Order: sequence, then C-alpha cells, then structure tokens
Amino acid sequence: MRAKVYVTLKRGVLDPQGKTVQRAVKSLGFKEVLEVRQGKYFELALPDDVAADRARQVVEEIARTVLTNTVIEDFRFELEEA
Amino acid sequence: MRAKVYVTLKRGVLDPQGKTVQRAVKSLGFKEVLEVRQGKYFELALPDDVAADRARQVVEEIARTVLTNTVIEDFRFELEEA
Repeated sequence: MRAKVYVTLKRGVLDPQGKTVQRAVKSLGFKEVLEVRQGKYFELALPDDVAADRARQVVEEIARTVLTNTVIEDFRFELEEA
Repeated sequence: MRAKVYVTLKRGVLDPQGKTVQRAVKSLGFKEVLEVRQGKYFELALPDDVAADRARQVVEEIARTVLTNTVIEDFRFELEEA
C-alpha cells in the first residue's frame, strides 16, 4: 500500500521559496502565472497486508507529528492500494 | 484556474532526505513504514479566463524547465477550475 502526503503552507504564511519560483517563471515570459506556492510531497510505502483503517491511522499520525509543522502547515493524504 | 505540480525523484535515484524521514518515523515506533520518498509540490494560480489547452501548455513547460531537474526527477500535474 502506498500513501501520498501533501504538506502545504497555511494561507497567510509567507512563502519566499514560492515567490522566488514565481519571479523565475515571470522572467521567462510566462505572464499567465499569478502566484506560485511551494509545498512538500511524500510517498510512504506500507506492507500490502496492513488494514486500511490502521494504515490511515498510522499515516495520519506520521503526517501530523513528523512531516508537518502544524503551526504553519496543513497536510492531506490519500491511500492507494499497490 | 489552479495547477498542482508534483515532482518526484526518478526510480533508482538516491533520496537521503526521504531516508532521514524514514529513520525518524521508525525511531518513533511506526514499524509499518517500509520506505519514504520525498518530492516537491507546487500550486500555480492562473487567471480564470485562460483556455484549458493554453494552461496545460504553460504549466507543462514551466514544470519541465523550472520546477523539475529532468535528469533525476519526473513530474506530473493536474489542472483545477477555480
């Protein structure tokens, strides 16, 4: 089983990395891009015989305690059967 | 319109950042996690009146030329109506 975890900065938190990418994109002539925000992305591999409920519980706790700084970041995740 | 771009290391490319997260996860007692791979995640905001075809073309080119090191990374993206 695989879990995909997406970590994004909360709305209102400054994102200098995103701003830098945005400037790079603009300087290349892509005027369509209004804003860029950068986040993190994790893929976790779990054994195939883990129950979906348990997997959800484990991934939720890992995302909350290890992958996300919950003061400034939000996360969401999805599980995928292998 | 929003674009979500996911950048991941190609299979076979070492991921020391992911390995470090994996060790942290294991040391916290989550024995279910077999592997962690870390990637990048970008959200791009585009004007709502951009045609989907044009948006797809712009985002594909930005992802390929700015967001991804195509030697070691792959990308995929999806478009979302606002």
